[in-house]
Amino acid sequence: MSSHFLSLSRRIRKTHFTDRVIENGVKGFTVYNHMLLPTYFKSIEEDYHHLKNEVQVWDVSCERQVQIKGKDAFKLLEMITPRNLNKLTEKKCLYVPLVNSKGFMVNDPVIIKVSKEKFWISIADSDVLLWIDGIVSVLNLDLIIEEPDISPLAIQGPKSELLASKVFGSKINNLKLFDIDCFNFEGEELLVAKSGYSKQGGYEIYVNGPDVAIKLWDALFEEGKNLNVRAGCPNLIERVEGGLLSYGNDMTITNTPFECNLEKFVQKIVPNHCISARSLNSSKIKNPGKIIKSLSIDYKNPVYCENIWKVINKKNEIIGRVTSGAFSPDFDTTVALGMIDINYLNDEEDLFTIIGEKKYLTKIHEKPFI
Amino acid sequence: MSSHFLSLSRRIRKTHFTDRVIENGVKGFTVYNHMLLPTYFKSIEEDYHHLKNEVQVWDVSCERQVQIKGKDAFKLLEMITPRNLNKLTEKKCLYVPLVNSKGFMVNDPVIIKVSKEKFWISIADSDVLLWIDGIVSVLNLDLIIEEPDISPLAIQGPKSELLASKVFGSKINNLKLFDIDCFNFEGEELLVAKSGYSKQGGYEIYVNGPDVAIKLWDALFEEGKNLNVRAGCPNLIERVEGGLLSYGNDMTITNTPFECNLEKFVQKIVPNHCISARSLNSSKIKNPGKIIKSLSIDYKNPVYCENIWKVINKKNEIIGRVTSGAFSPDFDTTVALGMIDINYLNDEEDLFTIIGEKKYLTKIHEKPFI
Repeated sequence: MSSHFLSLSRRIRKTHFTDRVIENGVKGFTVYNHMLLPTYFKSIEEDYHHLKNEVQVWDVSCERQVQIKGKDAFKLLEMITPRNLNKLTEKKCLYVPLVNSKGFMVNDPVIIKVSKEKFWISIADSDVLLWIDGIVSVLNLDLIIEEPDISPLAIQGPKSELLASKVFGSKINNLKLFDIDCFNFEGEELLVAKSGYSKQGGYEIYVNGPDVAIKLWDALFEEGKNLNVRAGCPNLIERVEGGLLSYGNDMTITNTPFECNLEKFVQKIVPNHCISARSLNSSKIKNPGKIIKSLSIDYKNPVYCENIWKVINKKNEIIGRVTSGAFSPDFDTTVALGMIDINYLNDEEDLFTIIGEKKYLTKIHEKPFI
Repeated sequence: MSSHFLSLSRRIRKTHFTDRVIENGVKGFTVYNHMLLPTYFKSIEEDYHHLKNEVQVWDVSCERQVQIKGKDAFKLLEMITPRNLNKLTEKKCLYVPLVNSKGFMVNDPVIIKVSKEKFWISIADSDVLLWIDGIVSVLNLDLIIEEPDISPLAIQGPKSELLASKVFGSKINNLKLFDIDCFNFEGEELLVAKSGYSKQGGYEIYVNGPDVAIKLWDALFEEGKNLNVRAGCPNLIERVEGGLLSYGNDMTITNTPFECNLEKFVQKIVPNHCISARSLNSSKIKNPGKIIKSLSIDYKNPVYCENIWKVINKKNEIIGRVTSGAFSPDFDTTVALGMIDINYLNDEEDLFTIIGEKKYLTKIHEKPFI
């Protein structure tokens, strides 16, 4: 992975955990929501094997919360996502696409109901606060939007349940995927969800303020000594194997939720109070010409997709674009995510991905690798 | 300046000039509007002296354009900025604060009138496209918003006029500050403005597409050989000396234009069609409790402000915050920008800035250093 030095400033925000992350030997960062996000510690491969076998603590403070508070908070949420929010409760958070009036993806966050009139939108990398500010600027809604000082910390990996129960008690073992509840940590009530940006299982803890942040980090490392706990971060190889989309990489504001394979999060008929209703209910958008797929590419050397890789057919016509990809040691192939022309999804024809100057045989998979 | 490795991905976009920037020995990047922006080449000090004496070419592609096109384009612009836009013409661009309904800064871009119904908002580091998308999502306006493939390239420094006239002809010498016009370059009509993020004079060229980008870069270096042209970038020391604000550093969405010393860009009575009218016309917001000032700090070693430095009074009470700062070789003092409690602006009392663990005598200046 090519690297350059990143210069720091107030604009590129440190997190409450950044000093600990540096002490733990972080080797790279990216910038996500104007904030530092670690990219690897030992190497992407070593981090990958460790994540799939042990347990890691991740500084994902960059998943900023957009707090919507007030009488009209729920009404606003129903305007901005085409997903049915009936299942959203104080015990259950939801992954939702945010979609604009043209039917395009603004973000793909998780929504948390903190209390009756207070919600957090835990965002991917785009200024959702500004989008909502724009909507609210011209509507007379009774609500306050702000970014509270909440720093998500994730515990991920097969031993995450063991580690979490040591710190939060065995009650945490009862949480199912996307369940959320309050847990006591040294006198603080913290929201903990069974969620995270890996397929290895784990939790995301919504940490309020700098003091509890450091205490919690240190407690997790103290309790995790015998579990071989390490500082980690979302792992490119594992994420692509798992088919987890990255806003900004695999989808942008030029894509619809249908292109992004997010149809199951769009109501069959989107109700009219939703700003994307008219667009998403049109048959043209419901039947996209391309769709994101998991791919395997017959390229067997360590590689990371930093720019778009073109996917071509036998006639050398471009029929898709790979937006995330990495060589997977476990599957002994390069795994990838890319938007593919629907005419080629069930085709028997050989497809190829261009990496560097050469082309490599490419297979479309119905499901992610893990 | 402390540095860490930045990992690349599609989400952290390269520019059409990035390869040339790397060939020219860039040593650091930051991320700005999800895109790479160089931070220094030889060293911040060496770049600084060169910028103030010679001429540099800057890749400022990260100043993305938000294109507003359609019958209601101008109407929208009048909604989002409290500045009077009467002077905006196809020959004159304007620096404008974008302000939300609460009276807070969303961005501080330059607006360019490309044609009667087509405008570019050349933005600082926040997703203005999403803010406008939010506004337009709930209003029935006849316009299209998008980010065109336009990559600003700046020529900055005292010899910028010499270099620009070699490439664009002597007509360019007639441009005055914020004048903009079309200039021919190898058969392409390019918009060139007399503007830029330094106080050394210069131009910003709005380059369309990758091919002309590389041709123009190479032509500027070919023609600039005898002018000691170098690749450069906005220079922290020079910018702070010049009192140029940085959105995300010196002001955020928690600040009003009055706090940011931008009163001259706010109409005395903001008209009601402007979404910030009600807030900005209130006397409470018109009379802020703190305001951004140029400062000198009696600290004489090389230093860069990466986090906030607190400003205190004799009683050790916090009365301000430095958000950008650097040691200036030319002024032999640390120059800074910070938000200061208005009760201390005309005070004779000694003020101090805390850098590291120590405090250093601090003076407030009425004007920038250059």
